[in-house]
Amino acid sequence: MKIKIVVVLVLIQLVYWSCAEAHPLDPLSPSELNLVRTIVTNSYPPSNLTFQYVALDEPDKPQILSWLSSKSKAPHSPPLPLPRRAFVVARFKKQSLEITVDLSTRSIISSRVYNGHGFPTLTFAEQGLVSKLPFSYEPFKESIKKRGLNMSEVVCAAFTVGWYGEENTKRIVKVKCYYANGATANLYARPVEGVSMVADLDDMTILSFSDRFGIPVPKAEGTEYRASKLKPPFGPKLNAINVTQPHGPGFAIDGHSVSWANWKFHLGFDFRVGPIISLASIYDMEKHKYREVLYRGFISEVYVPYQDPTEEWYYTTYFDCGEYGFGQSASSLEPLRDCPSNAHFLDAFYADANGKPVKISNAFCIFEKYAGDIMWRHTEIAIPNQVITEARADVSLVVRMVSTVGNYDYIIDWEFKPSGSIKFGVGLTGILGMKGGAYSNMDQIKGEIDIHGTLLSDNTIGVYHDHFFTYYLDLDIDGQRNSFVKTTLETRKVKDHKIPRKSYWTAVTETAKTEADGRVKLGLEAAELAVVNPNKKTKQGNKIGYRLLPGSVAHPLLATDDYPQIRGAFSNYNVWVTPYNKSEKWASGMFVDRSRGDDTIAVWSRDREIEKKDIVLWYTMGLHHVPAQEDYPVMPTLSAGFELRPTNFFEANPVLKTIISN
Amino acid sequence: MKIKIVVVLVLIQLVYWSCAEAHPLDPLSPSELNLVRTIVTNSYPPSNLTFQYVALDEPDKPQILSWLSSKSKAPHSPPLPLPRRAFVVARFKKQSLEITVDLSTRSIISSRVYNGHGFPTLTFAEQGLVSKLPFSYEPFKESIKKRGLNMSEVVCAAFTVGWYGEENTKRIVKVKCYYANGATANLYARPVEGVSMVADLDDMTILSFSDRFGIPVPKAEGTEYRASKLKPPFGPKLNAINVTQPHGPGFAIDGHSVSWANWKFHLGFDFRVGPIISLASIYDMEKHKYREVLYRGFISEVYVPYQDPTEEWYYTTYFDCGEYGFGQSASSLEPLRDCPSNAHFLDAFYADANGKPVKISNAFCIFEKYAGDIMWRHTEIAIPNQVITEARADVSLVVRMVSTVGNYDYIIDWEFKPSGSIKFGVGLTGILGMKGGAYSNMDQIKGEIDIHGTLLSDNTIGVYHDHFFTYYLDLDIDGQRNSFVKTTLETRKVKDHKIPRKSYWTAVTETAKTEADGRVKLGLEAAELAVVNPNKKTKQGNKIGYRLLPGSVAHPLLATDDYPQIRGAFSNYNVWVTPYNKSEKWASGMFVDRSRGDDTIAVWSRDREIEKKDIVLWYTMGLHHVPAQEDYPVMPTLSAGFELRPTNFFEANPVLKTIISN
Repeated sequence: MKIKIVVVLVLIQLVYWSCAEAHPLDPLSPSELNLVRTIVTNSYPPSNLTFQYVALDEPDKPQILSWLSSKSKAPHSPPLPLPRRAFVVARFKKQSLEITVDLSTRSIISSRVYNGHGFPTLTFAEQGLVSKLPFSYEPFKESIKKRGLNMSEVVCAAFTVGWYGEENTKRIVKVKCYYANGATANLYARPVEGVSMVADLDDMTILSFSDRFGIPVPKAEGTEYRASKLKPPFGPKLNAINVTQPHGPGFAIDGHSVSWANWKFHLGFDFRVGPIISLASIYDMEKHKYREVLYRGFISEVYVPYQDPTEEWYYTTYFDCGEYGFGQSASSLEPLRDCPSNAHFLDAFYADANGKPVKISNAFCIFEKYAGDIMWRHTEIAIPNQVITEARADVSLVVRMVSTVGNYDYIIDWEFKPSGSIKFGVGLTGILGMKGGAYSNMDQIKGEIDIHGTLLSDNTIGVYHDHFFTYYLDLDIDGQRNSFVKTTLETRKVKDHKIPRKSYWTAVTETAKTEADGRVKLGLEAAELAVVNPNKKTKQGNKIGYRLLPGSVAHPLLATDDYPQIRGAFSNYNVWVTPYNKSEKWASGMFVDRSRGDDTIAVWSRDREIEKKDIVLWYTMGLHHVPAQEDYPVMPTLSAGFELRPTNFFEANPVLKTIISN
Repeated sequence: MKIKIVVVLVLIQLVYWSCAEAHPLDPLSPSELNLVRTIVTNSYPPSNLTFQYVALDEPDKPQILSWLSSKSKAPHSPPLPLPRRAFVVARFKKQSLEITVDLSTRSIISSRVYNGHGFPTLTFAEQGLVSKLPFSYEPFKESIKKRGLNMSEVVCAAFTVGWYGEENTKRIVKVKCYYANGATANLYARPVEGVSMVADLDDMTILSFSDRFGIPVPKAEGTEYRASKLKPPFGPKLNAINVTQPHGPGFAIDGHSVSWANWKFHLGFDFRVGPIISLASIYDMEKHKYREVLYRGFISEVYVPYQDPTEEWYYTTYFDCGEYGFGQSASSLEPLRDCPSNAHFLDAFYADANGKPVKISNAFCIFEKYAGDIMWRHTEIAIPNQVITEARADVSLVVRMVSTVGNYDYIIDWEFKPSGSIKFGVGLTGILGMKGGAYSNMDQIKGEIDIHGTLLSDNTIGVYHDHFFTYYLDLDIDGQRNSFVKTTLETRKVKDHKIPRKSYWTAVTETAKTEADGRVKLGLEAAELAVVNPNKKTKQGNKIGYRLLPGSVAHPLLATDDYPQIRGAFSNYNVWVTPYNKSEKWASGMFVDRSRGDDTIAVWSRDREIEKKDIVLWYTMGLHHVPAQEDYPVMPTLSAGFELRPTNFFEANPVLKTIISN
């Protein structure tokens, strides 16, 4: 058993780095989160304060790189002392505070009131409180009674409202309610449509209420998904498949550092975005060393605009990371169902609204994946009297988190391959965003009527929407000074008149000089995109690089001057390349709830130089979703993904000599 | 153990259908192949005849459908008598013959000389014979000597030459040679560049020879891929992963019919295209019956144009099915490497040039795949005092064949999912098409020089090329009368002035009336493509259908009037839809070697009606390949794929109640 699980339970505030496995990029531990709370509430009375976001304020990149370098040169010496800091966003007396806390000196080193547009991520606590308001609100009680519903079966939830040009914005949400609990767990399938409430998150009061009575609540029948509540017949029936590893897993976990096969990386966790992969390096057998690939990568934002422009739905546009917290929303993974039997699970911790640590059990699973695929193979029959076959089974390492943001469940996979590829998988499952409607059959929908979705069941419409996943990928290909290269495949005429062929294509390479050159809308031309290290070349003189193999290309269809798209303008290009800047992490901006798009990558990205610089690649993968009846009452996973693939990074196939222990 | 393997060894020519498991779509058995040979050679003396293609001439579709229907109504009665026929393409006295043989009457029922352009698929026998010619050809021996090479280490192979506007075409190939055998098995990495021979396949003579002496043969070092010949250090090291099924596999094989979970289908084999999946139906638990999805599907052609316009390479364009036989080229799969431990293997048979049956052991493997993925899941925390999590592990059934056409190995997967999806996977591995060159470093390549590829190693260039996979998919969605529907996502302006949002998208559906409406170049607009049954609707009134989720979209970059592209014009659109016509199987035409593009889908597809007809969907998935050094000396698998996904085919999620035995 190679797994070492080191639970860092020492009182870190007393002795920093006393534990050898501590890493400057480790997320804040429960005791560190407690310490942050103590330090902050010493200055700001807790009665008036809520913690909206508490995260590691990681040391600056040069510090981390020096630390790494000193560690690799003298692994047994005490590591370089590095600051250990937390970044806190809090609400205090109806203001947003940005506080930086130094844990070793137990002090606040900076604090400022944020005066710009937008508000912090919503905590679970305030979402819970605001969702309770309708139950003591007389007009709502009246509406429930009028519909002949039982109040004890009603569940409400909070929805962000975006920004639609208002001069002044308050911290408000819409509260929508559902009819669930007893007869079904599938609340989203039973909207109490027509009832609309606006509530103030700071005051915890309902500001406005309306009821366009008339749409029936869809029936409970057919909405349930809990096995214990479903009725026979069951099926299809599948035979069990067990995955076993006679020598145990091939990976080792030391604190938050993972090593497997030729890979090593650090796995962090963040309240806002979930998994953060740092310092991913791959061992080069020829060069006898680990080589840098990715300094830091994570999903920066998930932008989900719904496409129903009617009164109760037009505002529905989610920024799942910035508004709801993709990490806060991580679900505990179920062994054998969410992850295979050879998976190892890791917990994660975040600070709740009171600043107290909350544990998410099994927030991550890590497992070696063997899908029956072939890593490489060849059969040779051209050599007389011989049949040569060589084949290798393909094994990879997967790090998985599932973030359940209300109705939707996002399966986020980071897959490391011995060949050097990193595959990024996203699985969409869970429950659709559904709207009540008057219809039970499409025949009733005549003429100009647009229901803005698919009729899934009687009175139930699955609303059209998109998903845009914007990845932050600070690639450091064999070092920090990198360039972004676009290779266009261009058709050429054959000029040699002795050759009867008329045309061919060739590869024309262009290096992006500024950010403007690095913006790409995919699908318009045949092109390959890569991040290269222009100062390092293979023996054959090719630039060392990694190529982006895009997947599921989609472009936003909203007008660029429409409010949701101004806020989601980071999706206007599939690719952006920026010079590294520690403060540019969030494609959608720091304060996303009710944001006005003035802090997105579309604003920062100007014409800065990006050639031979430390650069960050931002890639947006997208899906337009026209729901189908099969997506009801719970969606079969729809998968998408993309790949970063070494391209002239190695001198030759790095898995030519791979071996699998028997 | 649920697998029943029924080896049909009865003398089928004596008693047809005596064996209950025989199916009218079964490929010809060895004894049937022998019978075909006997019948044909009774009329055509075998000394002058070669068999180029022997295949089942399947009964007409209405006959198969009646047979199926009678079988399902009275499963224990003797099935409807159906003709059992073979289709043979032969070369006889330098002419191509098309012969139809009736096996039950032991007679030739039609025979005609083909007078059109193009020639049949090359047999292994003639490729072998023609590759031997150089060894007794003095100028070639001289060239080898001049290079200081040892003739016993030389291996030659035959390459189709295409058509470049010649008025008269003979059945010729180019013969190219490599230096391999002793020091390496990787012949393709050591081309004897500059030597070019043209040989006549009918006469088995060399017609012309040239030697542009000057390019060195690349060294053997670094080209080997056999584990037994590689030297330490080995790595990366992976821990074994075993896949076991305590209750055995969940599928049953009866002859060539496969059933698993809610799927059943027939797996055929064809010399030209390899696997043919027929009569794929899925069991609907609500309707208590199997419902038709796919009548017949296979890869119709694999078109691989290389992009080097120089004298020795310009003609290099392969049609791997029509010219080389994707089925003939099937490699025997290696247990535990090509397929996991829970795989079941099936042999396949084809007729060689003499008409004799040849067995390909382990031509297919079938296995249940569990990659650790999630079929569907949801976690619910909105209901007070409860955390509900439901998740199901995703298991699918894979049918795999690997076709090794010379240097390239294509991994062809058909994956059936209990959710109703069929996923089509293609993995590209094996060895690149390589060209000798004068260079060892990119610095030597200055100014206007284009090497038309990537410098992979000293004197070794991986030539630019494309792969286009054209799938024939005769979908019968819940019956034969289907339509092709394009749903475009169109941006609309919000007209209601009370709504502050400006835009949204909606789904606009168009049904293709004629073939012209069914041609689609993907990537130009946001659209969903589906085949629907317009006469059948869900309870909610949605058209029952299957959607095409494209993968790896590529468009040909050659001029449309260039010769290779005229022959490969079926790749001009990613999607074609044609009315079913038994004779329209081969996108590239019946006689592809040296074809002139006059029998491709681009010619047949005119403006025939396709609405509410039995229609065939042709989908072309493509990849442009700029080789990388990692692809040398053998390529890590590059994967591509697409999906057919039920879309309002079921009333609701068909795997909601799935269960896995423990």
